[in-house]
Amino acid sequence: MSNQSSYVPPRVWKWESESGGSFASINRPIAGATHEKVLPIGNNPIQLYSMATPNGVKITIMLEELLAKGIREAEYDAWLIKIQDGEQFSSGFVEVNPNSKIPALLDKSDGKDVPVFESGAILLYLAEKFGAFLPKDAKEKAKCLSWLFWQMGSAPYVGGGFGHFYHYAPERFEYPIDRFTMEAKRQLDVLDRHFSENRFICGGDYTIADMAIWPWYGVLVQGKLYDAAEFLDVASYKNLNRWTDEIATRDAVEKGRKVNRFWGDLDEQLHERHEASDFETKTQDKIEAAE
Amino acid sequence: MSNQSSYVPPRVWKWESESGGSFASINRPIAGATHEKVLPIGNNPIQLYSMATPNGVKITIMLEELLAKGIREAEYDAWLIKIQDGEQFSSGFVEVNPNSKIPALLDKSDGKDVPVFESGAILLYLAEKFGAFLPKDAKEKAKCLSWLFWQMGSAPYVGGGFGHFYHYAPERFEYPIDRFTMEAKRQLDVLDRHFSENRFICGGDYTIADMAIWPWYGVLVQGKLYDAAEFLDVASYKNLNRWTDEIATRDAVEKGRKVNRFWGDLDEQLHERHEASDFETKTQDKIEAAE
Repeated sequence: MSNQSSYVPPRVWKWESESGGSFASINRPIAGATHEKVLPIGNNPIQLYSMATPNGVKITIMLEELLAKGIREAEYDAWLIKIQDGEQFSSGFVEVNPNSKIPALLDKSDGKDVPVFESGAILLYLAEKFGAFLPKDAKEKAKCLSWLFWQMGSAPYVGGGFGHFYHYAPERFEYPIDRFTMEAKRQLDVLDRHFSENRFICGGDYTIADMAIWPWYGVLVQGKLYDAAEFLDVASYKNLNRWTDEIATRDAVEKGRKVNRFWGDLDEQLHERHEASDFETKTQDKIEAAE
Repeated sequence: MSNQSSYVPPRVWKWESESGGSFASINRPIAGATHEKVLPIGNNPIQLYSMATPNGVKITIMLEELLAKGIREAEYDAWLIKIQDGEQFSSGFVEVNPNSKIPALLDKSDGKDVPVFESGAILLYLAEKFGAFLPKDAKEKAKCLSWLFWQMGSAPYVGGGFGHFYHYAPERFEYPIDRFTMEAKRQLDVLDRHFSENRFICGGDYTIADMAIWPWYGVLVQGKLYDAAEFLDVASYKNLNRWTDEIATRDAVEKGRKVNRFWGDLDEQLHERHEASDFETKTQDKIEAAE
């Protein structure tokens, strides 16, 4: 093993450096707000504060799926929170989510403010509120929620573990890369075996478990996360690729992926979303119109 | 920064070594069963397959809390799954949980088998089945589930991140220790601030969110995880300590912590639990009786 170390931790850890590769400036050992700022509120019942990371995209896919079913009460304003600029540390954001992570949702319908945070909790909240994308039968519901929680507890090893050490860390350390690659590949194999016998996560029905898993594991096998397609040999997970491709063609998924995205192709970006017609105006046109 | 590295990952990762410190032998890059074995089934409605790790203890606390409320349908058999021996890779276990992690539950009541996996999903399943420890009001329920999912998405940075690199890894690497210590302390501060204004996670009511968070963050500030009390300065999180101490005195918590535990003081161990009276027989007596 390389990276031989003679490092001896101090008796008590101290916050000293700003080292840490990309996102280092927004990693802090303390919680709470760094500045006073009120969150914007639009005209729709649902207010979303987010960015088009895998966790953010879960919710915009769900909201677009609800709207595609004709559920107008799911109309939403999606406000962009630029996490690299520390906007998740505003007093307004912390009030909705004391953990300062996107996505955070504020449901203003029914005359009361309901804050919800953590993407899994938001998916479940919306599914129960609108009676959609969650099985009613107790056994099927237990299966769906087992997989939803599986995604929440597993993806940190892919994102904060594998993705960080393979792609974002300031240097490449063999031991952590090896450790988290092993776990990422195990998780991909768990899914691949599952999809050898199931069209969707919960069998025949498309549910919030698919919406939670696809933005991480689907996008990973598409080769769009961490430049790791070859390293992880993502093509070998054939059943997972089959499911990934099927989900990718859904109109709500195509739309949801664009919301709060401000990188990549301009055609794939919709910085904020306030009404359905926002998808029809190209970001390039908006930028030109604003100039 | 130490641990300077000239490591260049291969184009395609290969499973080569068995390195990885404690638990290395049970880390695999593939899923599925390694051997044929049927799971035991007891006489109670609920069958639990687990070990007294933080995730395992969440469920035994919940079941003991339900029994303490007089809900007899929550009677359970708790079977020990020795993860260091790879018992989570048996064909029977994989059938209940394809992810091969404890805890896994099989609900045999109501004449059907309902498998549930992931500790958060099991807590929610039991709370909904028995109508207990989960707020009914939509806003309060959203708060409780936000925190439940917070625990599921956050603890991997404490366990698989901080705990691994500070305590279990074969060597001490500065960069990963620093990265995960920062995040562990941030999470402790999130909780400490929350408990400055809330008796329990969801305000005045003790819920499944407390049961999910206590076995990780409560036990961590008790100094019983990773020998890290001084390094993390856990005593400084005064509100979190206040909550930790209050939860620790609950009878169901004292009982739940003992179930499927086979290390530490003998008085704290109950290797398997099949009926309430099992807590009255000391493990030492059982060992002597069996000899």
